[in-house]
Amino acid sequence: MYPERIQKLIDMLIRLPGIGPRQAARLIYRLLDERDDFRESISSGILGLKELKKCVRCYKTHEDKNTMCKICRSETRNSKVYMIVEKDMDLDTIEKTGVHEGFYFVLGGALSPLMPESYKHIRLKNFSDFLEKDNNVEEVILATSATTEGDHTAQFIEKILSPIINKKTSLGKPFNITRLGRGLSTGLELEYSDRETFKSAYLNRR
Amino acid sequence: MYPERIQKLIDMLIRLPGIGPRQAARLIYRLLDERDDFRESISSGILGLKELKKCVRCYKTHEDKNTMCKICRSETRNSKVYMIVEKDMDLDTIEKTGVHEGFYFVLGGALSPLMPESYKHIRLKNFSDFLEKDNNVEEVILATSATTEGDHTAQFIEKILSPIINKKTSLGKPFNITRLGRGLSTGLELEYSDRETFKSAYLNRR
Repeated sequence: MYPERIQKLIDMLIRLPGIGPRQAARLIYRLLDERDDFRESISSGILGLKELKKCVRCYKTHEDKNTMCKICRSETRNSKVYMIVEKDMDLDTIEKTGVHEGFYFVLGGALSPLMPESYKHIRLKNFSDFLEKDNNVEEVILATSATTEGDHTAQFIEKILSPIINKKTSLGKPFNITRLGRGLSTGLELEYSDRETFKSAYLNRR
Repeated sequence: MYPERIQKLIDMLIRLPGIGPRQAARLIYRLLDERDDFRESISSGILGLKELKKCVRCYKTHEDKNTMCKICRSETRNSKVYMIVEKDMDLDTIEKTGVHEGFYFVLGGALSPLMPESYKHIRLKNFSDFLEKDNNVEEVILATSATTEGDHTAQFIEKILSPIINKKTSLGKPFNITRLGRGLSTGLELEYSDRETFKSAYLNRR
């Protein structure tokens, strides 16, 4: 139905999150109405993404000349606390709150309970290697999403890290793994909270 | 907050319909996780859009070797009826229904009541020129959207075309301008219909 060039581009775009076939077509027809140089800028912007690097320590995407990102190079942050996040977007969201003063580790995704092999796609090994050598860290916050995948990922991480953490604790270095608290989202009307959320809010009351 | 390359690409992507800053960032981080050759394919797909042509008669986007699109070259379609649509996507949607057997004309947008100059961006002149010369057409269906802009556009078209149509009618060639009927959308529960929709449905009852 669509011209072949458009159909091919639709087939590629629908691999991206939140883009269905109609939304893809809408984007393409808008691109068609735009000037050549706008399309050229977008194209080269996409190609240019390969110049971005991953921080050698936390795996955050960055473009500094340094091998480490700005956060990992900071000398004022709390080196006793590391927060594990699923992806760059989560790190950005958390950094904007200004609440976390420690460092990060970007896992590169979440585990799917239905795909046991998905652990191969996350970078947990790099973090456990780091943790084994480091003598400074005292807390690892598992900041995975409040979803089935996020919970499953957190449980998996906890299982993998616990031998290292038990060893450190037994050597007299107290160590904690923590999870983000569950409860009502700010702004959520009680009427719209689900059972699980209410239960967590009730248990975490203070 | 985002690396500069990402921010620049976000600034471009948010010009596209339905893409906000967060959605743009999400798309870009996904693109970052994809292989180089996928990004290259998307880039060249976007660049390749400039190879697409507009049909010299209806202005539909196409890529045939011909200067006219497949629909306009058809010899079985009803050449007495022309349907004016705002954009390619609308034409595609209507073609999929298989209801319209006549030809089309793609206006290239709708008029905004708040921007009196917006009539310069639509191709109405090309259609009125065509209509003036053609001796076959007996009906023009204004298939603009059921929105304020769509209604405004239809009224504007009617005003511009009426001298030609009156002339043809006075020369003994009966001519109609019609609009798509208004009423309840199939599947819509009565409870959720608004006043205007119900009024149209009531008046168009049969």
